[in-house]
Amino acid sequence: MIAPNMATLLVYVFTDARIAAARLDAMLRSCVDQTFNMMSVDTDTSTSDTCAILANGRAGAVDEAAFEQALLAVCTRTTELLARDGEGASKLLRVNVRGAASDEDARTVARSIVDSPLIKTMAYGADPNVGRVLMAIGKCFDALIDPVRTAAWINGTQVIARGMRMSFDEAALRASLAGDPVELEVDLGVGGRSARAWGCDLTEGYVQENAAYYSS
Amino acid sequence: MIAPNMATLLVYVFTDARIAAARLDAMLRSCVDQTFNMMSVDTDTSTSDTCAILANGRAGAVDEAAFEQALLAVCTRTTELLARDGEGASKLLRVNVRGAASDEDARTVARSIVDSPLIKTMAYGADPNVGRVLMAIGKCFDALIDPVRTAAWINGTQVIARGMRMSFDEAALRASLAGDPVELEVDLGVGGRSARAWGCDLTEGYVQENAAYYSS
Repeated sequence: MIAPNMATLLVYVFTDARIAAARLDAMLRSCVDQTFNMMSVDTDTSTSDTCAILANGRAGAVDEAAFEQALLAVCTRTTELLARDGEGASKLLRVNVRGAASDEDARTVARSIVDSPLIKTMAYGADPNVGRVLMAIGKCFDALIDPVRTAAWINGTQVIARGMRMSFDEAALRASLAGDPVELEVDLGVGGRSARAWGCDLTEGYVQENAAYYSS
Repeated sequence: MIAPNMATLLVYVFTDARIAAARLDAMLRSCVDQTFNMMSVDTDTSTSDTCAILANGRAGAVDEAAFEQALLAVCTRTTELLARDGEGASKLLRVNVRGAASDEDARTVARSIVDSPLIKTMAYGADPNVGRVLMAIGKCFDALIDPVRTAAWINGTQVIARGMRMSFDEAALRASLAGDPVELEVDLGVGGRSARAWGCDLTEGYVQENAAYYSS
């Protein structure tokens, strides 16, 4: 969970824009689906997470497409702050999957990567372990994966092409991975759908915080 | 994974029994489905796990029901040894879910519990956190869960009845949780199907081992 001592995630968004309630509801659901619902600290679920939006209409009508873009940006930024604030986290993970056969496939693979303890400890250890990236993609049995079309990048450096590990400057990539955030990109090469997911690294601090819940 | 420095899990079972290949194959698949495939150290998947059985027939025909029971016992014991040997693990987790509406529901809930980082750190910290048990059950959206019928036990002590935390001797349960293994039982109260799953606790050792893969 984000912060078990606080129990939950409560998000409130306020705007002066005048937007019909049904339209605002649809926008918020779409944005939450793309942001908060694609974030995980540890795969465990808080029990009363809430995201609400209130529009008082004082600013009058607005460009709704521009408003939705702004709302998505607010939700994205808040999602990143929350993920980075995960228990014991030392860095943010951003995952971008494209070239998927469906939205669901893209989301499945993005979630698999961001949830993988071996990816999370790789980010913590600043160690570009390409096999772990392939594993996190390959274990998505429900998604259409074609190994020979799979490509991946770590912090902008291509590490996988056609399902194989590429040669790259390991020392340079290790230095880059020591920073925050860590960005993983995957191109599945089998379609046109994409998804993003957010998470954090896994450190000794996570274990200590959650193993000493009562006594802390 | 079980042991990423070894890359994978290779299991070979040998017997002198004489059993038709098709029957032996069916038995092994059934046993693996109930044991190795219900074990997880960290939700990440080894890339070339193998389980094979070879029967040379020298002992002649055997009681096949008794043989299958013995095979299940061998697979169960091996599964427990493997889970207990997970990276950095200090104890084995055994999870038993009963009262489920379907086999798949029972397996989903058992896996959710054994995979939950908050359950795993609870076991490591020897801290009977009942809310985490309820969370790990409740996040199984695909399974039929009725909160008021849900009951749970930690190391034989009932901690949840009708979906509510019971009062129990916390000091005694904490002392019990400090031991190895930790056993979690859940009765979903909505059917007659059951499943078992195995895992291990999550310690600083897991993080250290996997964050320092190259340098270790």
